[in-house]
Amino acid sequence: MRPPEGIRLGPGREFDLIRVLVGASEALPPGILVGPGDDCAVLDGGLVASVDLSVEGVHFRRSWISMAEAGYRATAAALSDLAAVAAEPLGVLLSMALDPGEAEETASSIQSGATEACRGVGATILGGDLSRSPGPAVLDVVVLGHSDRPLLRSGSVPGDEVWVTGWLGGSRAAVESWDGGKAPPGRLRAAFVHPTPRIREARWLAEHAPLHAGIDLSDGLLGDAGHLAAAAEVALIIDPQRLPFLPELEAWSGERDECLRLALHGGEDYELCITAPPGALGPLAPAFEKEFGIPLSQVGEVADGRGVRLRGSLGVKGVPHGGFSHFEGRKNG
Amino acid sequence: MRPPEGIRLGPGREFDLIRVLVGASEALPPGILVGPGDDCAVLDGGLVASVDLSVEGVHFRRSWISMAEAGYRATAAALSDLAAVAAEPLGVLLSMALDPGEAEETASSIQSGATEACRGVGATILGGDLSRSPGPAVLDVVVLGHSDRPLLRSGSVPGDEVWVTGWLGGSRAAVESWDGGKAPPGRLRAAFVHPTPRIREARWLAEHAPLHAGIDLSDGLLGDAGHLAAAAEVALIIDPQRLPFLPELEAWSGERDECLRLALHGGEDYELCITAPPGALGPLAPAFEKEFGIPLSQVGEVADGRGVRLRGSLGVKGVPHGGFSHFEGRKNG
Repeated sequence: MRPPEGIRLGPGREFDLIRVLVGASEALPPGILVGPGDDCAVLDGGLVASVDLSVEGVHFRRSWISMAEAGYRATAAALSDLAAVAAEPLGVLLSMALDPGEAEETASSIQSGATEACRGVGATILGGDLSRSPGPAVLDVVVLGHSDRPLLRSGSVPGDEVWVTGWLGGSRAAVESWDGGKAPPGRLRAAFVHPTPRIREARWLAEHAPLHAGIDLSDGLLGDAGHLAAAAEVALIIDPQRLPFLPELEAWSGERDECLRLALHGGEDYELCITAPPGALGPLAPAFEKEFGIPLSQVGEVADGRGVRLRGSLGVKGVPHGGFSHFEGRKNG
Repeated sequence: MRPPEGIRLGPGREFDLIRVLVGASEALPPGILVGPGDDCAVLDGGLVASVDLSVEGVHFRRSWISMAEAGYRATAAALSDLAAVAAEPLGVLLSMALDPGEAEETASSIQSGATEACRGVGATILGGDLSRSPGPAVLDVVVLGHSDRPLLRSGSVPGDEVWVTGWLGGSRAAVESWDGGKAPPGRLRAAFVHPTPRIREARWLAEHAPLHAGIDLSDGLLGDAGHLAAAAEVALIIDPQRLPFLPELEAWSGERDECLRLALHGGEDYELCITAPPGALGPLAPAFEKEFGIPLSQVGEVADGRGVRLRGSLGVKGVPHGGFSHFEGRKNG
């Protein structure tokens, strides 16, 4: 028996709770390479597994999206954890707790969306569970994958560069638009409804460069960068000027500070944030963008220290922890 | 690509729905040996995986059991699917959707119960997910295991014997006792609250005898025998006189017909129902009972035909489908 791989997460009440739970559980037995605290558990032989809950009224609302879209989104979010560790998908288990009065129709809709998300990355629905629920619809998606060399959260070293795929902040903008009573513009709606699990992107990057660490952006860049920093006991310095935004986001928000807030604190972009040695990713960016049709952007670097800091006109400054916590304030309605 | 392993389930609205869902999903790709419709999915290399939902107000009530007991029970129920395929447990992923006002305390309680269930069978909690929920507490337990020769639902042939482990009907009796406003007697309460996933028992049986098929008793003996019958396209003939009951159940229910109803239709006993060639298990029963402290009882046999039939004083008769469906009537309150 050896101790767990270290439950080093960024700050936040949700993560405090996870720390308590993990602290209460057993040391990792032989055969378990990575336990709680990374994007996936990793078992001997390279099996990786993760699970992602999606709760109506917390993660989505029916006034915003269809149940097929909820099924797609919940499954894509779960598959994104496979992208975070650069794993190939094997399959998905889909559980649904539904109002019995609408179970057939709702389950079929969710399933169709989940199947679409799986098909996009070559995964299969292997099974699942169904229950009635006296409350909101609850979707729970388990993803199983394989990686001979899973990309963990813990490998960053000072001097590394910090990169992100795609565009940030759009998903949160869609939520705030709905919250304000307006339908979001098409590409912002799509950022929320139809995220692409960056599995092909992650594997392409892992094949072409010596990646040090990775995470998918579910809690907002500040929160997730905080997890990378905590896992490696380093500091991540983020340069707000370099964050990639959709033109539609800049038009919608009206000012760049708003885009920044959405990207840093918003969450659920399901893009990747990775660290790699200096010069490893820059030369690959044009080929990446050509292959996948999304940008690959350096947004900062790794330094000695702890936590996440922002580079600004006044130099580097510390920031209070960011990111969404399920147990602080509200998320997505 | 080859077609799914056959989604042959017994009758019932819940299973009709599963049939619709599975029919809508993809054929099984290479690397997936068993997909939806068995107790676990089985992947190349012998990895098995399953998931089990537990919803407050559907599967349990807080007026009946503590949240630690709910955590134990949900995890034991999920681990029981590993027993059904005679797999060794690797680990568990535990998801919880909880009221944010009580998340810390409730999550810790659930976790302590889940850890106890894992410890009992040598499993480890590998990770999970947490969300707030505006509705009832929802627990979702993923189990991962390994078996070089998973025991499937589909292997029964006419002439086989049908056997069950342990005692039947106790779990449902506890629910009916609570429903009637009374605390159930200790051993009946324990049957509901503290089921033992029969993992050691399943592996012992698989090592000592050429088992043909297996399932764990979650839907009641009639429902689960119906799955075995459907999976192998045979009939299972159950002899009500041979069903094993706790003395406490006979005392509580007052008459044997009540015990029968609970065992046949009740569900959630989490005992095993297995089929094996004639004479394979009988000689092992004394050693099994000595090893595990529970009976191993022949309760019927496999015959040509379809479905489940009951042997009675008037000979063998067909029965309407039994077992619990989440989408027909109510379960556990």
